[in-house]
Amino acid sequence: MASNKVTINDVGPRDGLQNQPKVLNLEQRLSLILALEAAGVPEIEVGAFVSPKAVPAMAGTADLFAMLPKGSARYSALIPNMKGFELALEANVPLTSLVIAASNTMNEKNIRMTTQQSVNVSRDVLSLAKSKRANVQAYVATAWACPFEGKIAPDEVYRVTEQLIEAGASGIVIADTIGAANPAQVQSLMGGLVSRFDSDILSCHFHDTRAMGLANTYAAIEAGIRKFDASIAGLGGCPFAPGASGNVATEDVVMMLEQMGFDTGINIPLLLKASNVAIALTGTATGGKAKSWMEKYYNN
Amino acid sequence: MASNKVTINDVGPRDGLQNQPKVLNLEQRLSLILALEAAGVPEIEVGAFVSPKAVPAMAGTADLFAMLPKGSARYSALIPNMKGFELALEANVPLTSLVIAASNTMNEKNIRMTTQQSVNVSRDVLSLAKSKRANVQAYVATAWACPFEGKIAPDEVYRVTEQLIEAGASGIVIADTIGAANPAQVQSLMGGLVSRFDSDILSCHFHDTRAMGLANTYAAIEAGIRKFDASIAGLGGCPFAPGASGNVATEDVVMMLEQMGFDTGINIPLLLKASNVAIALTGTATGGKAKSWMEKYYNN
Repeated sequence: MASNKVTINDVGPRDGLQNQPKVLNLEQRLSLILALEAAGVPEIEVGAFVSPKAVPAMAGTADLFAMLPKGSARYSALIPNMKGFELALEANVPLTSLVIAASNTMNEKNIRMTTQQSVNVSRDVLSLAKSKRANVQAYVATAWACPFEGKIAPDEVYRVTEQLIEAGASGIVIADTIGAANPAQVQSLMGGLVSRFDSDILSCHFHDTRAMGLANTYAAIEAGIRKFDASIAGLGGCPFAPGASGNVATEDVVMMLEQMGFDTGINIPLLLKASNVAIALTGTATGGKAKSWMEKYYNN
Repeated sequence: MASNKVTINDVGPRDGLQNQPKVLNLEQRLSLILALEAAGVPEIEVGAFVSPKAVPAMAGTADLFAMLPKGSARYSALIPNMKGFELALEANVPLTSLVIAASNTMNEKNIRMTTQQSVNVSRDVLSLAKSKRANVQAYVATAWACPFEGKIAPDEVYRVTEQLIEAGASGIVIADTIGAANPAQVQSLMGGLVSRFDSDILSCHFHDTRAMGLANTYAAIEAGIRKFDASIAGLGGCPFAPGASGNVATEDVVMMLEQMGFDTGINIPLLLKASNVAIALTGTATGGKAKSWMEKYYNN
């Protein structure tokens, strides 16, 4: 039987901050991470080892890792390639994340490689990771739909997932990069994955573009998934995917899961404080869709 | 196997307009109903036969029924008691709706009767309806939770539902009056009801107070429910239930269901026009949670 515990990975400090207009300095980024950690968020995506020219919002991620306390949260960083992985190793990053789009077109537009070429590069990174005893997880992006190709065949997601697990990925995050999945599709694909692979290695990443973020989270829970990405205050999107906007808000996901009787280990009043930090720092975060209700309910 | 067709009952002209500050005149109320009908919404709650002093927004409902075209939509009205039913009969209303709260305290606060007394009054109405060959459906309100009593025992909902079906109700609407249900509870209660009664007679009414309206709709779909209340532009709430606000928006529900491959028979671009009518008339309607995306996607 699936567990009552759910693990939340807050991607706000990376996926969120990378996709909003204001570039924050390292102290501001640190303050958001510390607010999340204070609320008991168990995993936090801290930054990305990408070109500071291409993505100014993620500049100085190595320095940011050096500023982090030895806290209770598990910190991770996105790496686009071997170069990024080497930088992450130097910065002693405990967990790094590769991204492979299930859609060939999306992968080519994003990093100028086919999906298979990208899997091959990931194999090299995972092979080096093994020798260094480093944890590397992999995102399967545009897992349900791609803005260029439309609907993605589940078999393609199974195939990429299998290759990445065989190559040694410590986790696989199935991502609805453009927020196009509906809950029937989520239950179907995640059910298919859970029947093929260990559910403990799987996680979901949803956007709330079509207001289906919570419905999709519930569908994944029904399929047996117990790990989710979410973004504090609903920060985020994807600058390379037309139509992508707004990761599902951590506040909304945690509220729903806790009300369903799941244990996220997160303190909701402190999470609302972290949400206010995100809103104050960016000026663009929404705070999620249930925040006004949550503030009345949990702060009394 | 459950059907691919889903029936939407738009309660905006009644549940919606009754619970927002501005009182509309009959022409304005008619314009909203006609916009919904033009979009192909198959069922519309037109008004209520209640005291115009207590509920000014619903004054003149008999006159409004006289103004309605012989259209394709099925029109209904809320009736609080026998007096309301008699007025509805005089106005040739094709379908009326009784409301019985599963919570005793809520029922007493709302209409000064216990739940059982309210079921007994409903029996009298349903008995007269039988002799007049009139269709009367019944709402089981606060079916999951009540602001005064907290969680409601499913057995209480089964008991009230059974009594109302035996008394001749043409349909039973299970209502999360204060928007407190989570999808696990929805799937559990609706699953229990579907195993006891004909699913065709059952319907769900959700509020989006905690942003779980779509997740709850999906959970009910999973349980086999194929009929839903929703309110155009997210208009609504319940003035007698503290903390209740915002019915789930018809736009959001129709979008999710259509994307899941269900057939609602509703034209989405025309539904967005009806949404704009609701927003223009009231000044308070939100338009639902996916509207900006829907306008880009469906109006191109």
